[in-house]
Amino acid sequence: MVEQRADQGIDGFRRRYAAGEAPARVLAALRARILDCGDPGIFLHVASKEALAASCAALDPADQARLPLWGIPFAVKDNIDVAGMPTTAACPDFTYLPERHAGAVARLVAAGAVPVGKTNLDQFATGLVGVRTPHPVPVNPHAPGRVPGGSSSGSAVAVARGLVPFALGTDTAGSGRVPAGLCGLVGLKPTPGAVSTAGVVPACRSLDCISVFAGTVADAWAVHDAMAGFDAADPYSRPWPAATPADAAPLRVLGVPDEAGRPRFDAAAEAAWDAAMDRLRAMGVTLLPVPMGAFNEVAALLYEGAWVAERLAALEGFLAGPAAVLPVTRGIIAGNGGRFSAADAFRALHRLEALKRETAPVWERIDALAVPTAPLFPTLAELEADPIGPNSRLGTFTNFVNLLGLAALAVPGPDRPDGLPAGATFIGPGGSDAHLAAFGMRFEAAA
Amino acid sequence: MVEQRADQGIDGFRRRYAAGEAPARVLAALRARILDCGDPGIFLHVASKEALAASCAALDPADQARLPLWGIPFAVKDNIDVAGMPTTAACPDFTYLPERHAGAVARLVAAGAVPVGKTNLDQFATGLVGVRTPHPVPVNPHAPGRVPGGSSSGSAVAVARGLVPFALGTDTAGSGRVPAGLCGLVGLKPTPGAVSTAGVVPACRSLDCISVFAGTVADAWAVHDAMAGFDAADPYSRPWPAATPADAAPLRVLGVPDEAGRPRFDAAAEAAWDAAMDRLRAMGVTLLPVPMGAFNEVAALLYEGAWVAERLAALEGFLAGPAAVLPVTRGIIAGNGGRFSAADAFRALHRLEALKRETAPVWERIDALAVPTAPLFPTLAELEADPIGPNSRLGTFTNFVNLLGLAALAVPGPDRPDGLPAGATFIGPGGSDAHLAAFGMRFEAAA
Repeated sequence: MVEQRADQGIDGFRRRYAAGEAPARVLAALRARILDCGDPGIFLHVASKEALAASCAALDPADQARLPLWGIPFAVKDNIDVAGMPTTAACPDFTYLPERHAGAVARLVAAGAVPVGKTNLDQFATGLVGVRTPHPVPVNPHAPGRVPGGSSSGSAVAVARGLVPFALGTDTAGSGRVPAGLCGLVGLKPTPGAVSTAGVVPACRSLDCISVFAGTVADAWAVHDAMAGFDAADPYSRPWPAATPADAAPLRVLGVPDEAGRPRFDAAAEAAWDAAMDRLRAMGVTLLPVPMGAFNEVAALLYEGAWVAERLAALEGFLAGPAAVLPVTRGIIAGNGGRFSAADAFRALHRLEALKRETAPVWERIDALAVPTAPLFPTLAELEADPIGPNSRLGTFTNFVNLLGLAALAVPGPDRPDGLPAGATFIGPGGSDAHLAAFGMRFEAAA
Repeated sequence: MVEQRADQGIDGFRRRYAAGEAPARVLAALRARILDCGDPGIFLHVASKEALAASCAALDPADQARLPLWGIPFAVKDNIDVAGMPTTAACPDFTYLPERHAGAVARLVAAGAVPVGKTNLDQFATGLVGVRTPHPVPVNPHAPGRVPGGSSSGSAVAVARGLVPFALGTDTAGSGRVPAGLCGLVGLKPTPGAVSTAGVVPACRSLDCISVFAGTVADAWAVHDAMAGFDAADPYSRPWPAATPADAAPLRVLGVPDEAGRPRFDAAAEAAWDAAMDRLRAMGVTLLPVPMGAFNEVAALLYEGAWVAERLAALEGFLAGPAAVLPVTRGIIAGNGGRFSAADAFRALHRLEALKRETAPVWERIDALAVPTAPLFPTLAELEADPIGPNSRLGTFTNFVNLLGLAALAVPGPDRPDGLPAGATFIGPGGSDAHLAAFGMRFEAAA
């Protein structure tokens, strides 16, 4: 499957351009394929013929060798601004038309990449399931009766369907990793601050990251490499030391959740994780069981604790108006978010600081943490019956990551016994993006 | 005056010990002088004869050359734990008896220093005036009809009276600088995180710093040097690179508030500041007027904005009980602090992050910022008439410092035309403590 995807990956496009095909022609065909894909839930906006032609006309053939993403099409989650395309966050009443690209999109365009459309999401990026949208739910091509994962559902499905070689997501609680795991993709969630979030509709402004979905780690890294870098327009942007997987010291000791830290939600997911650990051992990696208690406590701060009010901070005025917002989404943001006082928020900040200190020593014993990307694979019917529970459980191994300033990379692992995809996520300290990518490539190669 | 103080400074004690005087005898006399000082507002607790004798007995004469503060007595603001002395935060109902020293006190004791008592403060370190205490107000020896400055009033007056060569304060909004300015002292407020705040009653937990009052910058630096360093027990502690004033690159360009940034509260304070700028120019320093708008906006977040709820975060349970708390203090912490929601708090955090970005470039144009320590010198009568207004105005040039992660050093400047003390404060980026100290020594020498 990875081979199959590689044909639709960045190198496939490069080969076609090197063979003389013109981007205008290649991307017009790609556009037609998107419009004809039969799933109206993936894209909320597709670039017009004219816009696409103009983007291709702006590509100077003389730059083909110089620009790393020359002519490479990509999809953008619809909470990230692309100039001239409406931003909706999957809430039609929220729609605005941005005049400029988000910082990360601008860097990709400067590197030659071409945005071809905006993708569906859990409304306001609040959810890990992909079904919290007023539009049709993007269909998981591996499991049509199950959730695609969210909140970056459309971006993940667009790549899983081979419609684009890569797509941007956002990842606050796991929205760039869970859909990668459930759609059999790579999901790279950079160190917070490495990629500008200027021009992103805030979920939790202090935690939001732009993430990449791709078929291979190499493709995800090529995008990260073009996209990362300081942006003065984003107060949360941080200086980013250039680093490459080729230079990264190898990871030798990986922490894994100890027995008490493995929730037994789903036997098939558990079996897939056992197989993933077998692959890691076969690669010669030392696996060290680590207690997850402090990580779980961090995770709980995000939705059960005061951080849910950070979502309200950005949207309080909008939600106070007459806008149509999904009841589940409104309930979480305004309902749960409105329950906390400023004193609660400061206590949560203090607790997080203490938990940062408590968890810091683990990185002296392990090079990275390896966890199941998603410890369950809910059906659409399960979400209809309970819109909250399965969603919460999906974040078990993702929710704590941004609060602790960590980097993460979700990579397809051995399939589940039922043939559905399952993923492994490697989590490292802030700045470890290149190390994780180098290891992810080894993990892919060991398949 | 500085010369006079130097006799009562750290070197004065060193000379007496070098001449063969015993710490037990010197400190017993010092204790008697404290008890006999005629101002019952300075100390809330004085070490017992027995405790002091035990501390002195623990000093090994063989360590006299090795330990930088061997036998040097100091006073401790009563919101900082000293083992065996009650901590009250100037609220008798809050009293507890700590079993261990605060992290910073432990380091000073390990360096040979001897705590001799606990000092009065604005209750719960909430105030910049020094009169918000249920105990008698410490008398400013330079101006008995005016405020001593707060919240570290007792510590500042203890040093100004020559009762101890140095004292610890805390500084969240300016409590380590304003009393230094009004009592004619040096006040060193380290970079946040450089000195452990484990064992400090929280004001704003994420901003609190332990500060030093001394007669000279050299004495303040000797204390800072012994006290700074990483402490795993304080989640806000940060690794501290050893640096010394001797190695620090000199400051050549100082920013000063531009005309619009100089509030005209008090003509005598303004005249003193003009004289301070004259001294700086005479030292060959280039003064660059800088706009204070963004700094003022940061400052407003602290008491007028959501950060006042951080004070409530620590005390909400206590204040909900039957404890006797000063009405002005309760009004600020529970009243103002209770007005804000968690969404307000997160918006304030976002705004601070934007203001950090907005103010950062100023440090490329200037080596440090020079400001009046206190732009007015309120009388006790003024505070009786209005307990809030003069207090707020006192924080004009101090409130923004910790929110921006900066270091600051208050140094006595030219006196006011009415003969009262006035101070200059030098503010630099996080980590600039040694640079500020080196400059402060030059500023003293230029007097």
